[in-house]
Amino acid sequence: MKVDIEKRILAANDEIAASNRALFAAHGVFVLDLMASPGAGKTSTILATIAALRNRYAIAVIEGDIASKVDAEKVRAHGIPAVQINTGGACHLESAMIRRAVDTLDLDALDLIIIENVGNLVCPSDFDLGENAKVMILSVPEGHDKPYKYPNIFQVSEAVILNKYDTMGVFDFDEEEFRDVVRSLNGQVPVFPVSATKGEGVDAWAGWLAGRIDAAKETDAR
Amino acid sequence: MKVDIEKRILAANDEIAASNRALFAAHGVFVLDLMASPGAGKTSTILATIAALRNRYAIAVIEGDIASKVDAEKVRAHGIPAVQINTGGACHLESAMIRRAVDTLDLDALDLIIIENVGNLVCPSDFDLGENAKVMILSVPEGHDKPYKYPNIFQVSEAVILNKYDTMGVFDFDEEEFRDVVRSLNGQVPVFPVSATKGEGVDAWAGWLAGRIDAAKETDAR
Repeated sequence: MKVDIEKRILAANDEIAASNRALFAAHGVFVLDLMASPGAGKTSTILATIAALRNRYAIAVIEGDIASKVDAEKVRAHGIPAVQINTGGACHLESAMIRRAVDTLDLDALDLIIIENVGNLVCPSDFDLGENAKVMILSVPEGHDKPYKYPNIFQVSEAVILNKYDTMGVFDFDEEEFRDVVRSLNGQVPVFPVSATKGEGVDAWAGWLAGRIDAAKETDAR
Repeated sequence: MKVDIEKRILAANDEIAASNRALFAAHGVFVLDLMASPGAGKTSTILATIAALRNRYAIAVIEGDIASKVDAEKVRAHGIPAVQINTGGACHLESAMIRRAVDTLDLDALDLIIIENVGNLVCPSDFDLGENAKVMILSVPEGHDKPYKYPNIFQVSEAVILNKYDTMGVFDFDEEEFRDVVRSLNGQVPVFPVSATKGEGVDAWAGWLAGRIDAAKETDAR
């Protein structure tokens, strides 16, 4: 019974996600779903990405959290529109929440929406939000063994950001093993070493994202 | 409708949890449900706790993970019985999973079972497993703002372990603000600074746990 219920919830979510996706394409907006554990550095990675790309694209952010509005305030302090979603206990964002948040934004004025999902390596990976790409962050202090334990999120992500890379010397993180396991789960997925709070490694990641945005714009314009 | 379904799932879980709790009391076994984000150091905290308490109590571990059996193998390498539960995608343990795992253990020969829940600051806090106490770990690299974003897990925990305390100098962690917010959410809950991999701070935490185990034994024996 429980599996049937889950299937019905996912099917309802997928339907709204497909409608979101059509809406985003019609307005030429690229949507990124950024997923990670609590404290992996989602907000600081978003701020670093904004700094790298704001002269090239008009950006807005949708912040997903169980509670609080601290992340949306951090983003707005940089002059970027931000919508806070409080899930009130739910462990992930769903496509209907994104639709309500998007309805408060001027899509014609935007090129890129970054969605910060709830801090969680499990549930967000199951839910299509209508995004163009799912990307995940793993932070070095979490350890190189995480792909063994949370394989699904590594499989659905189109890029992996390895954040807090500057703390590699402090933790016992085997980067070679990490890259091997990630590759075994998800072929040629790129891994970007980043220190978001220091701005290091952001250019390579932002360059990949810009490439995806420009490619989607060409497809949408056809 | 979704809320009703969630209520039914939680009610079914609570019923088995109550039965687990009676079983544990009948056998004089104390059960700890340890919750944390991925990579906060659950397994290393368990190993440090075992080292501190194994001469005093007979201990077994139940390891919960989406996939893999690496944690159970780490525990068994120290000569401690360990049962691995793979949830196959589910973001938390449930009381029925614990019952099946417990059925493989000799309860009369045990004083303490430590359950390592799935790495997640959200879902595990909603599910009673029949444990004597829920305890959570926050690790310093995750940041001092986490109680704002994940209040429920701080509210249901009877102790908070602040792990990777030795990296306090590397990260911008405001311990005073952290303790203030935790106190506002959960009165006099103790916060134990620990560096599990170095064994630092473990005595205070293990002392608290031993106090709880001994108190429960007295109650069970009445």
